Order: sequence, then C-alpha cells, then structure tokens
Amino acid sequence: MTLPVFDRAAIEQAVTADLVFETVRDALIAHAHGRTVVPPPLHLRFLDADGDCHVKAGWVTGAADFTVKIATGFYRNRRFSLRTNHGLVCVVSAETGHVKAILDDEGLLTAWRTAAAGALITHAMARTNAATLAVVGSGEQARLQADWLALLRPISTILVHGRSQDRVQALCREFSARGQHARPAGPRETAGADLIITTTPAAVPVLDAAHVLEGAHVTGIGSDMAHKNELPPALFARAALIATDDHDQCLQDGDFGHAVRAGATSAASDTPVGLLLESPVQRLDDAITVADLTGVGALDAALASAVLHNLTQ
Amino acid sequence: MTLPVFDRAAIEQAVTADLVFETVRDALIAHAHGRTVVPPPLHLRFLDADGDCHVKAGWVTGAADFTVKIATGFYRNRRFSLRTNHGLVCVVSAETGHVKAILDDEGLLTAWRTAAAGALITHAMARTNAATLAVVGSGEQARLQADWLALLRPISTILVHGRSQDRVQALCREFSARGQHARPAGPRETAGADLIITTTPAAVPVLDAAHVLEGAHVTGIGSDMAHKNELPPALFARAALIATDDHDQCLQDGDFGHAVRAGATSAASDTPVGLLLESPVQRLDDAITVADLTGVGALDAALASAVLHNLTQ
Repeated sequence: MTLPVFDRAAIEQAVTADLVFETVRDALIAHAHGRTVVPPPLHLRFLDADGDCHVKAGWVTGAADFTVKIATGFYRNRRFSLRTNHGLVCVVSAETGHVKAILDDEGLLTAWRTAAAGALITHAMARTNAATLAVVGSGEQARLQADWLALLRPISTILVHGRSQDRVQALCREFSARGQHARPAGPRETAGADLIITTTPAAVPVLDAAHVLEGAHVTGIGSDMAHKNELPPALFARAALIATDDHDQCLQDGDFGHAVRAGATSAASDTPVGLLLESPVQRLDDAITVADLTGVGALDAALASAVLHNLTQ
Repeated sequence: MTLPVFDRAAIEQAVTADLVFETVRDALIAHAHGRTVVPPPLHLRFLDADGDCHVKAGWVTGAADFTVKIATGFYRNRRFSLRTNHGLVCVVSAETGHVKAILDDEGLLTAWRTAAAGALITHAMARTNAATLAVVGSGEQARLQADWLALLRPISTILVHGRSQDRVQALCREFSARGQHARPAGPRETAGADLIITTTPAAVPVLDAAHVLEGAHVTGIGSDMAHKNELPPALFARAALIATDDHDQCLQDGDFGHAVRAGATSAASDTPVGLLLESPVQRLDDAITVADLTGVGALDAALASAVLHNLTQ
C-alpha cells in the first residue's frame, strides 16, 4: 500500500481547536503521571548553511500510535527569501511498527500544541478575573498564544511588546481586525498586565520581575535550550506557584533551570503542568504564578494521532 | 508542492549494484577520513508488542542531502503473520533543510548498503585466490552477502551453516538455482572455508577460532548491539589485520569490542574499513584477516541521496 502523505491544508481542515485543546490537555496529564515515553532527541548541525535538524520521538504509553518528528531550521535561507523552518511528522503504529502516514504539516501541529499548552496552563493558573494580556514577542507564537487564550476566557486588552516595531504594529493590526483591543506597549506596561506570555528566543530576560504586579500570571514559552532565558530568576523567587511541563527538561533547558541555578528557587519547587489541568488551581488573588513550558514530545504523538484519526475516518 | 514518496518497487528499478558499490565505497572512505556526521541514534521500546524503533541520521560532510532513517522491529507481529520489520528514509536537503522525499523502501537500502559494505571489505581483505565461501546464518543478509560478493569475485562453493535446517536447505536451493555450487555444512567445515561471513543475531560466537585456517578472511555482519557476539575473541588474537567500519561503534557494539574486553587484542589494533578500500591491501597468504561491521549511518545518507538522484533525474 502506498504510504499516505497529508499536507498542511488537509491537516488544517481535519482539526478543530476543541480537539487540539482536549488532546493536549490529556497528553499533559498523562505526562505528569509518567504515562509517556520521550527519548532524548537526536540533533544534527550544518555550520555552513547555519542550519540544524532536531528529531524528536514521543509516545503516550498504551496509545495506538507513536510519532517521530523531524524539524529543521536553516537560517541562511532568509538570504534567499526561502522559508527557514521545515518539518514533518511520521505516525507509526505502536502495535505493529508499521508507518501509518506522513503528516507534512510544515510545523503546524507543533505550533498548535504549543499554543494550546500555553493557553491551557495560563487559563488554569490565572485569576478568574484576569483580563489584560501582554505578549512579549511578535512572531507566530505571540499571535497564537493570544488567539488560543481568547478561546478560553475573555481578554479585554492585548498589549504587544517586541523588538521590531513594524512586526509589533502588524500583529496589533491583526488582533484589531479580529475585534480585539490591541496596542503596542513598552516593557513597564507589559510587565504590569494581568496575564503575561513570553514567546521569544531571548538569551537574556525580557521582563523586569520587580514590575510584575501581585495577582499576575506569567507563562514562558520561548526558552527550550539552555542558552535561552526569557523569565528572570527574581520572578520565580516571587512566585507562589511554579509549573513546568517537564521537570527535567525545564531544569536543563528552561527558565526554571536558570532560576534554580541562580538560587532564586529550589529544584523541588515546581508542580507538573498536567496536575494543574486536572482540577481547579487554588491560588490567592495577590499571588504571582509562573509556568515554564519547554515542549513535550508526547504532545506531538497525541496530536498527530488524533489528527490522523480525523483524516482517515 | 506535494512531498514525493517512492516505494520499494520504484527504488529497486532506480538502482544498480554498481551504483550501490560505488556509493558505499565512497561513503566508507569518507567515514574513515572523518568526513561524515553520525549523531547517536534515538531508541524507543514497546514492551507489550515486543517492538523497538531506531532512528538514525547521517551525513557525508558537504553532501547535498542528509537522511533520517526510521526502522522498526515488532516481533509479536509473527504471531499474526505480519512483517516484523518496517522502515523508511527521509531525504533532507543539507543546504535548506527542506525534506526532498520519502523513500518508503521497507529496509531495502539498509539491506543493500550492508551487503555492499560486507562484499567490498571481504573482497579487499581476502587472498586473491580465496574461492570457497561459508555463510553463517540463513536470513536475508546471508543470501545478499553471497550474491554481492559473487559480483566482485568468482566463488567456487557456498557452504551454508544455520540453526534452521529448513531455511539452510531453502537458501542452498536459491543459490543453486542461480548456478552456484551450494550445500549445507557443519560448524567445522564452515570454519575451514577461505572466506567466512557471519550474518546472525547470535549472542555467543558462531565460529570456533581454532578451526579457522591460515589464509582465511572472516567478516562479521550481525553484531550491532553490545549483547550480540558472533566472532570469538580468539579469532581476533589470531588475526594479522583487523578492520572496523567505525572504531567507537565496533568497540561499543561489535565483535571487536568483545575481543578487546576479553584482552584478545588491543583497542588500537583496528584499521578503518574505508582506508583498506582506497588501495590494495597488503596481506601474507597465510595471514588471517577479520572485518567487523556494525553499520554506519552515513552510508544510508549517501545511498539514499544517490537513489533519489536517479529517481528524479
């Protein structure tokens, strides 16, 4: 039988936000309870082309499928006006080892599971009446995090802070076109929002912890390698509740690890994101809460499997 | 653009043995000179289904493509009369990170590059007039090693030794049907052949070193994980020349490692296979020579790239 390949357009048609939320939530809960298999990823570097390739595999224990995901980033491509990121997901039967399909999604599913995970944990940890959202960064995840959070709770204003004023303005126009109140903001106003989501590849913190208000919730999305650091250690020192999507990975590659190494919090201070999605989070109105997400391979497996089910049913 | 997928039949049509020999030889030479990138593979295990998945990547430095290869072995499948092995190769541009094609080869290219590497090094290290071949094992590689070696030099007799007499008989009939003199042989006669190629997953040596004759050459194909061991340490102690396809990998996962750990030879006693393919090997007529092959990921990359070139030209 010919191996089925589904392209981005087909995948977009097959998925609803509800399905992504439900699948990602279940996978995060499974991961929190140790019911996932996520081996160390495989890396290749291509110095001349300024490129890298990451291969990640994941499985929710007992699920019918596992996945192997190939993602490349070749940054020299910009010079030639080519896309920098490529990727696909191979969906493999965990019962027979047969490759069921290729999802040639161009990174779409990774973007969606990241957006859903961020929105879910932000919504779960934030005050019920938190309504002003600041996004730091002006890329795809800045847009997706705001969009997906708005599916879960009303957002009164979106403040956008980023290095490129052109991209910040463009993103604000996109939000406004969809009926949101959105405007550019400086670092101080950004840090004063009820909800803050950081989505940058920054190597130095993008937020002043002293300016974050009591009662705020902060979710860090961008840091996923040891040299990246979006959230300042001092923010973790002020936090009453810290969540990580994967304890070991956040210690090694996330903002949580920077905070622990700086002595701002202890390595035992975090709670798995999945546990906080199982039942309502108890938090005081003046508490600061923080979530550090580095991306869990088992989410890829769960989402790809759900998408393939819809594509082939 | 739709991602191209080529199936096994298309791949078989696109390749000649000459192309495989030439590509594998060049890649082994590149590997011997450190002109390859082969990161540690990624592994997943599925205990209930008695399955595993290995993901290997490789690149010949400077080549236009690299590959990510997914290979699964699910041994419970036998109970349901399903194939146990599946796999495919993703060919990715090393210049832009774009996935060029999927070779849905069902493991064919791995089988061919293994056969070609074995035949090339056996032919290069053996005496010019070595003509009797013994293969140990009766599976796909037993057949391929004999077939591919016969493309490089005349073989007077093929002796087949294996655990399953039915499979040994069947393999001898296959060889005979193609005009070869082939017959089953016991362990002692096997060990006395001019050329010996072992192709089993054995965990204990399949050859008595004392019965190997002066002037013989032995190539071990099967050992590629630390718990496997086809060639006895005492054989390495008798060898005048030892070749490995990858020094570190053979130390860790090959027969060479068993011999070194047993004190039968030193960790510095091996020569890279690629160096022995560059120019005629100097060997005495009464010397015993040994090659240990564990499989190099860069060969997958080189061969897949060459195949894709033929498929798309």
